[in-house]
Amino acid sequence: MWHYRLNIEYDGTDFKGWQVQPDQRTVQGELEARLHQLFSTAIRTTAAGRTDTGVHALGQVVNFSVDRESKPEELKKSLNGTLPPDVVVHAASEVDAEFNARFSATGRTYRYDIEYGHRAVGRAYAWVRQNPLMLDDMRHAATHITGEHDFTSFCVAAHERESRVCDIRKCDWSTTGEGIRLTISANRFVRSMVRSLVGTFVDVGRGFIEADTVRDILSKQDRSAAGTTAPPHGLFLVQVDYGDIEQRNAETVT
Amino acid sequence: MWHYRLNIEYDGTDFKGWQVQPDQRTVQGELEARLHQLFSTAIRTTAAGRTDTGVHALGQVVNFSVDRESKPEELKKSLNGTLPPDVVVHAASEVDAEFNARFSATGRTYRYDIEYGHRAVGRAYAWVRQNPLMLDDMRHAATHITGEHDFTSFCVAAHERESRVCDIRKCDWSTTGEGIRLTISANRFVRSMVRSLVGTFVDVGRGFIEADTVRDILSKQDRSAAGTTAPPHGLFLVQVDYGDIEQRNAETVT
Repeated sequence: MWHYRLNIEYDGTDFKGWQVQPDQRTVQGELEARLHQLFSTAIRTTAAGRTDTGVHALGQVVNFSVDRESKPEELKKSLNGTLPPDVVVHAASEVDAEFNARFSATGRTYRYDIEYGHRAVGRAYAWVRQNPLMLDDMRHAATHITGEHDFTSFCVAAHERESRVCDIRKCDWSTTGEGIRLTISANRFVRSMVRSLVGTFVDVGRGFIEADTVRDILSKQDRSAAGTTAPPHGLFLVQVDYGDIEQRNAETVT
Repeated sequence: MWHYRLNIEYDGTDFKGWQVQPDQRTVQGELEARLHQLFSTAIRTTAAGRTDTGVHALGQVVNFSVDRESKPEELKKSLNGTLPPDVVVHAASEVDAEFNARFSATGRTYRYDIEYGHRAVGRAYAWVRQNPLMLDDMRHAATHITGEHDFTSFCVAAHERESRVCDIRKCDWSTTGEGIRLTISANRFVRSMVRSLVGTFVDVGRGFIEADTVRDILSKQDRSAAGTTAPPHGLFLVQVDYGDIEQRNAETVT
């Protein structure tokens, strides 16, 4: 068997998220259909982050195994030649059998963009809000999130049995030309976590709740304690890190 | 009669351009349908720039007259409440009967964005090209365009009887985070002129023609002398100027 890794970008607007679902257009579905064509055999892919409907990715990482060899450069070229315009392969490389895009990942970075005013151009890439938010309060609220915490309060998937403990290494609001951006890095994220956090930060920025209330919501470990969930189209999976593994795959074609 | 001016933004992706056409979704069609609803009478609008299919506008200016008064602030609010998400009214104001968005304009500014690499996110807002272009040569070519010239060589509408003489006040290439941007200002533009110019500048940037050849193409006054036409989705109508009139409309609601 040969094992491959792909770094991909996609515009989530017209996808029902990453994960294959019957009769739905998903990124995994499109990618696996092209891989099937290419290798004449059904191929199952694994992604670092199973993004929801409407969420974008600039640096999603995917792996798969196949019983036929392909030069990474040709694999990338063939896929880009057949994939729809809202999915692009930026890099392809051969990896060890042990590499798993999801479970080998040591860190993930997302960003969430909010733009102020009314916008038509670019409205699919940011949460467009009429009125500016109180950024200082939102920055203060973000400080309560960094470090290791149980994020049950900011997780919608109550049925999942996985741990909700995540180690947040970075959680910063910065200003952009048109608004503000949250950059958040962690070892892992639970489902809808970033959108739940952004929704609550925005409640802080509107003056609906105090910045310090975010600490109380977190400690309650109760989903109903958090505020609204931000819409998906402001969210981007920016980067996935693999620690030492990264160095071993030096032959990545970009 | 009351006379109004609107500053509007639109995402041209899903429009067959500005101008009303039977059975086609156009910006003018959407806007006039909403004005009809609002004032219960058919209203004809005039725009500063009749943008083509797929071309975007950040600062399009429109005017219309109606036999009923409306407060500009309410007009703006009502339109934004009913217009589709790809059209936004940024400002509304009452104007003199003499104001004509097209003929009163003293200057227009367009920009054209080119991004390098493969892109999925934002691909509707730039001409995405795999390989970087020779920017210095393109900048040199742009210097031949400034000033007053007959742009017949860069005009597709050979049947129009209007003059093709335009006074180019600015024609500059700058770098952006992801690629390069042409900013071009003139008293007026002829049809498809910016896209024809960009196509020819790109031919220079690829080394297909010399930068000085642009001067020769211009002087030939023959459309077949120019290069390819750049795709519409990188083009934005950024701003329209009205000289002294601008000052007279100080009550513009933004």
